[in-house]
Amino acid sequence: MSPAPHPFDEAIRLEALADGEFAGRSSPAYWNMIGPYGGITAAQLLQAMLQRPERLGDPVSLTVNFAGPLADGPLRIGTQLMRSNRSTQYWTATLRQDDAVAAIAMAVFGTRRPVWSHTEARPPTIAPHDSLPRASRDGAPAFTQHYDLRFERSPWEHRSTDSRGACWIADDPPRPLDFPALASACDVFFPRIFLRRGKLVPIGTVSLNIYFHADAAALAAQGTSPLLGSALCHIYQSGYFDQHGELWGRDDRLLATTHQIVWYRE
Amino acid sequence: MSPAPHPFDEAIRLEALADGEFAGRSSPAYWNMIGPYGGITAAQLLQAMLQRPERLGDPVSLTVNFAGPLADGPLRIGTQLMRSNRSTQYWTATLRQDDAVAAIAMAVFGTRRPVWSHTEARPPTIAPHDSLPRASRDGAPAFTQHYDLRFERSPWEHRSTDSRGACWIADDPPRPLDFPALASACDVFFPRIFLRRGKLVPIGTVSLNIYFHADAAALAAQGTSPLLGSALCHIYQSGYFDQHGELWGRDDRLLATTHQIVWYRE
Repeated sequence: MSPAPHPFDEAIRLEALADGEFAGRSSPAYWNMIGPYGGITAAQLLQAMLQRPERLGDPVSLTVNFAGPLADGPLRIGTQLMRSNRSTQYWTATLRQDDAVAAIAMAVFGTRRPVWSHTEARPPTIAPHDSLPRASRDGAPAFTQHYDLRFERSPWEHRSTDSRGACWIADDPPRPLDFPALASACDVFFPRIFLRRGKLVPIGTVSLNIYFHADAAALAAQGTSPLLGSALCHIYQSGYFDQHGELWGRDDRLLATTHQIVWYRE
Repeated sequence: MSPAPHPFDEAIRLEALADGEFAGRSSPAYWNMIGPYGGITAAQLLQAMLQRPERLGDPVSLTVNFAGPLADGPLRIGTQLMRSNRSTQYWTATLRQDDAVAAIAMAVFGTRRPVWSHTEARPPTIAPHDSLPRASRDGAPAFTQHYDLRFERSPWEHRSTDSRGACWIADDPPRPLDFPALASACDVFFPRIFLRRGKLVPIGTVSLNIYFHADAAALAAQGTSPLLGSALCHIYQSGYFDQHGELWGRDDRLLATTHQIVWYRE
């Protein structure tokens, strides 16, 4: 008997159909308040493009626009290679449920080369992973059961004039890092407006952008070690706020930077 | 006799064809090293979506993936409304030249509401606009003739361990700010790797992402006053670096945040 698949692999499992289309389903295991966790939708879209046999290189950028709600049930993802160059490919993907567009994505894949490299940013300071307790999931949405998040201070105690915050992020159960998992983790940050207002307010990510700064080998080297994340907001303006994050791996390796713009109501 | 149109308006001029398609041409006035300046291509794509009569609200986010080179000559932009909700719309646009895809874009348009708002970021410090000389355009590409850029220190003298820098940005000749102009200005920052390496190296923007934090009325209030921009890089890694920028208007108003991932060779 083979072991049960990891809930993340179950959530992003796709069946290849004809003409670059894939069949999947929204994941109850990664459910958020009123629909699937946005990170898992981003991971499904990326996974569809990764599954295409024509795909060359590793993801360099991924943008997902969340166009409409997703219900519990089957979904389809159409993928299209828009242009293929010598070392880069440009893909689009569209996620539909019952023929309604629920999310659209663009991705660039590329081949990385051993040229002069330098990390100018520095990782945030935080207490060691093992010294911090796992954050409570009491009353939290289902997807948080599958993320081991550790903060120095509870996000709820964090309210201040500064939304900057850091946390440790790991899959639960542990799972070796790959691109879909890294994409999903980019959406795990506590929405900055919750910190800032000290309360839950209605929100929804409108657009999520991810730049990957590592190749598949670097992600494999990370294995199941927890990621170190940091996030901040520049502006909450007239119903939309931005959120910027960094995801760091072992040896102060910056694996991804991520940005999103989020609708909110007050 | 009517006055000659502004070169920016000339550059983004589109003729509406059938089925959401538009005809335009690449702009010699905004030429960069080996093709059009990326900001003008982003502005053309945004302008096409803005021209669609079904469009509701103002731009909230714009992502442009630069898929291939553009030659001097005619081009076509196809636009598609992927989903329309009560207060948000999701658009895509594809720019082709001779049937080859040269750029693809996604945009979200939305209606802004007078809710609790707050700007957490602070504008960069820089000497007053009028106290600084306009940067030299000697040997610089054509598009820089149409941008009045002012730095405290020449970008070439800036080389250090920190790529952070600020500058004043204005159209030349002056032109009242609108969304296409703001999108174009988001790409005007000196590529951080030039600062860091103290030399020109081959580069090309792969993906440009813009979050707009103001509505049309706020842009109109900016008028022709110069924008204050700042930019920085987190990482130069294996042939791709990221660049993050902010564009500030009058009265410390944050008008846009922008990110791009740029291919480089060393």
